[in-house]
Amino acid sequence: MSSTDTSTLRVLVWGENRHEQIEQHVRDLYPDGMHTTIAEGIGEFLAGATVATTTLDEPEHGLTEEVLADTDVLVWWGHAAHGEVADEVVERVHQHVLSGMGLLVLHSGHWSKIFGKLMGTTCTLRWRSEQDRELVWTVNPTHPIAQGVPNPIIIDAQEMYGEFFDIPAPDELIFISSFTGGEVFRSGCTFRRGHGKIFFFSPGDQDYPVYHHKDVRRVIANGVQWARSELPQRAIPTLLRYNTEDFFHGHGYTGPIEDHDGE
Amino acid sequence: MSSTDTSTLRVLVWGENRHEQIEQHVRDLYPDGMHTTIAEGIGEFLAGATVATTTLDEPEHGLTEEVLADTDVLVWWGHAAHGEVADEVVERVHQHVLSGMGLLVLHSGHWSKIFGKLMGTTCTLRWRSEQDRELVWTVNPTHPIAQGVPNPIIIDAQEMYGEFFDIPAPDELIFISSFTGGEVFRSGCTFRRGHGKIFFFSPGDQDYPVYHHKDVRRVIANGVQWARSELPQRAIPTLLRYNTEDFFHGHGYTGPIEDHDGE
Amino acid sequence: MSSTDTSTLRVLVWGENRHEQIEQHVRDLYPDGMHTTIAEGIGEFLAGATVATTTLDEPEHGLTEEVLADTDVLVWWGHAAHGEVADEVVERVHQHVLSGMGLLVLHSGHWSKIFGKLMGTTCTLRWRSEQDRELVWTVNPTHPIAQGVPNPIIIDAQEMYGEFFDIPAPDELIFISSFTGGEVFRSGCTFRRGHGKIFFFSPGDQDYPVYHHKDVRRVIANGVQWARSELPQRAIPTLLRYNTEDFFHGHGYTGPIEDHDGE
Amino acid sequence: MSSTDTSTLRVLVWGENRHEQIEQHVRDLYPDGMHTTIAEGIGEFLAGATVATTTLDEPEHGLTEEVLADTDVLVWWGHAAHGEVADEVVERVHQHVLSGMGLLVLHSGHWSKIFGKLMGTTCTLRWRSEQDRELVWTVNPTHPIAQGVPNPIIIDAQEMYGEFFDIPAPDELIFISSFTGGEVFRSGCTFRRGHGKIFFFSPGDQDYPVYHHKDVRRVIANGVQWARSELPQRAIPTLLRYNTEDFFHGHGYTGPIEDHDGE
Repeated sequence: MSSTDTSTLRVLVWGENRHEQIEQHVRDLYPDGMHTTIAEGIGEFLAGATVATTTLDEPEHGLTEEVLADTDVLVWWGHAAHGEVADEVVERVHQHVLSGMGLLVLHSGHWSKIFGKLMGTTCTLRWRSEQDRELVWTVNPTHPIAQGVPNPIIIDAQEMYGEFFDIPAPDELIFISSFTGGEVFRSGCTFRRGHGKIFFFSPGDQDYPVYHHKDVRRVIANGVQWARSELPQRAIPTLLRYNTEDFFHGHGYTGPIEDHDGE
Repeated sequence: MSSTDTSTLRVLVWGENRHEQIEQHVRDLYPDGMHTTIAEGIGEFLAGATVATTTLDEPEHGLTEEVLADTDVLVWWGHAAHGEVADEVVERVHQHVLSGMGLLVLHSGHWSKIFGKLMGTTCTLRWRSEQDRELVWTVNPTHPIAQGVPNPIIIDAQEMYGEFFDIPAPDELIFISSFTGGEVFRSGCTFRRGHGKIFFFSPGDQDYPVYHHKDVRRVIANGVQWARSELPQRAIPTLLRYNTEDFFHGHGYTGPIEDHDGE
Repeated sequence: MSSTDTSTLRVLVWGENRHEQIEQHVRDLYPDGMHTTIAEGIGEFLAGATVATTTLDEPEHGLTEEVLADTDVLVWWGHAAHGEVADEVVERVHQHVLSGMGLLVLHSGHWSKIFGKLMGTTCTLRWRSEQDRELVWTVNPTHPIAQGVPNPIIIDAQEMYGEFFDIPAPDELIFISSFTGGEVFRSGCTFRRGHGKIFFFSPGDQDYPVYHHKDVRRVIANGVQWARSELPQRAIPTLLRYNTEDFFHGHGYTGPIEDHDGE
Repeated sequence: MSSTDTSTLRVLVWGENRHEQIEQHVRDLYPDGMHTTIAEGIGEFLAGATVATTTLDEPEHGLTEEVLADTDVLVWWGHAAHGEVADEVVERVHQHVLSGMGLLVLHSGHWSKIFGKLMGTTCTLRWRSEQDRELVWTVNPTHPIAQGVPNPIIIDAQEMYGEFFDIPAPDELIFISSFTGGEVFRSGCTFRRGHGKIFFFSPGDQDYPVYHHKDVRRVIANGVQWARSELPQRAIPTLLRYNTEDFFHGHGYTGPIEDHDGE
């Protein structure tokens, strides 16, 4: 099986779906919810992939063990209600990412519980929502996520996100954005955590029609494809004891004191 | 003030101090507790620095707000009782690291709550405690932490720690260890998180006299010096809003919906 | 076109082909030349790919402009005759790599002119050819190059390559090897240079049957697939002048003094 | 000896010194040559350091073996006459960098022979000299090179340098610049090569008074201090053969065929 055979790729777009219910101007931009528009953009570029959506208000936020087990790549958009996401669901998603589920975190998802838990930092930044033009520059032109888009991508109006963005140094820095006001932002970053691959991409906001932008949709689709695991099965890294010269049969951990004393 | 002026450097070595109370063979190696031996090693190389110790059994594990505020670099050794470290203390240490306190995590501290919280991964590995010889090879010879030690450092008997070590790709990989059995381990790694600098160094175990080893002590002292913040004050990165053309006066966050609507 | 559609992939294995002519024990291991065995290993895993070979003794070492233009990924094995590779051919290969041709550098190729030119360092290391067992450990399990092989790969007899290996810190560290003698080596490393992707993989030597090893062949095939460019055409990065607000039409460079004065 | 004891630090600023002779407007900005202004800026922040200058027109460009042997950190500014720098001098500087001499490459030095040789890439970029404002943003606030300057540094008028900047992914990305026109640039990057530390910093141009800017001078001084080697002596990494169990006494290389056959 090839990682780019999209016919069996199962994508789930998670949307907070609150702005759309509360604010008319968001509903005007995204009549079926932002998650739906994001999902459509992915489907546009990944023919054959299954792209589903779910939202915060579903039971267990739509992220049950069964749903996650059937998801290759999860795409996360949240903003106003990060605090309402149940810790046990975050824990479950965390386990799945470390076990090999791909994760895309979009825009204001920088402050989601799951992204913070995976990064270990505050994930804060500077911001301003004043119709800045965003230019998304490619600094890693050979990366699969950067394929098929112009350099720069031009987004006519966007919220500004600026540095210092408090994340770990990314494994790969793919995009850097500038804004009309002069701020810059590491807007496309990859991270490998456990058996999972994570792509953070900052363009996209409830107040602007960014998820209708062709190039933004292409990058998100590229990211989904990249984040898909090539491992044969989902499994979390586990602490195991190995006898000398036996490299392949690990033994489970039975505690710190007994083990060491007994040997 | 120079970062290598050690006369004002305040180091705190945190020891779990359980093996020493329970196991005679550990007490034989470390009669005053492992933390004391580790602290002595640091003091040996950083003349003028203040090197204190504290342990799990102190109130609040000896890590009150006041103590942390007066600590430039915290050194962490734990193993048998990671689970007994109170979450609120872990949270407090986490905030201080992200605000600029340096952190050294030693050996079995790989599975401490604070390291896991900062890394975002399981931090699991493969292991075996069977008197393997550990060779610690320098792969980054110009790094300050690698100065003054032979390549390799030879540790006659050690617990084996092997790959896959489930950590984020380190910002800098300084040491790679091999063991008699043939396993390898990324044994010296740096990570920057928020305003804090973190050095993980794996040599050292309660069952072996590793913290009496001259080269191991030198590396730990180098790490302490490196991890010290050069920022003028301790402060956690904070999400702030900036008006156009005002780069230096950020405004506090007042919520996701109101803010955006009001503008 | 997908990067993993191997039906159109054109691979060229370049072999120095000197040991095979001079030393009977090498000829015994690789009767048709090492390049042939390497090429067969690639073909075994990349069905549909075209895998050709060429050698040092061909005119222009078999690496004419036409040949390189028709090569997606070049695989390089050299050892005894690095100095005989013509500088102009090295320059030509360099230009093609920076323009998007993938490059695999195997084993003693660490000291080839092309690898040194791309790395900018001495690429020296420590070594010993004494039948050490090499264990190749995966430290980046989600990387496409690490798929389908055990952790560790066991190579019963090999030349030892040890640290310090004088290369730039790799973009991605995938494999670390240990040897019977206790040495370690960063044996699988990726580098992006210009529009090209480079994979260095150290297992493999003329004195040992390493290129007949199933797992080694799999890694090389994985590396070939990874190194293939996804860019629409081969082109070297070029210095261009852009007018304000014209992001897409660069102007050629006309010299440092005139240009600046004229504007 | 501490790396931040500047009393023994020997800095050499190399200036091409051509624009100053040919163009009146450059002479107006830098009456004693750009190298002199750069050197003064370094001396301002590194009290006690010896800061000398030399230029292209000196015999051997002022970079004899003796001079380099007495230089801890070399600072390089060139633009109009990269091609006039003799290859043998470039080779000599390269050997010293790989042996431990620190190197700062400023602005248009991106296209110098020495930087290209160390990077292995084209080092091309996009540019425009039209009085853009440059904002230099810190993305690595704990790095010693980022200390003591505001975020952002504001440079009122500058040449624009934009991405894609064809360099290897830097070991550490410290600064990202934006320009009035919206371009971005990785303007502060570190690289470790061999035993040498390299800092590239792009602000600075002959047509603008950038080297009189307090913050730019501070960054350059920080970079000089950082680039200084902490190794006990200058020595280039060398390929050596080690017998089993002898980790410290390497043997010189005597050729590829004989060695292997003889064993």
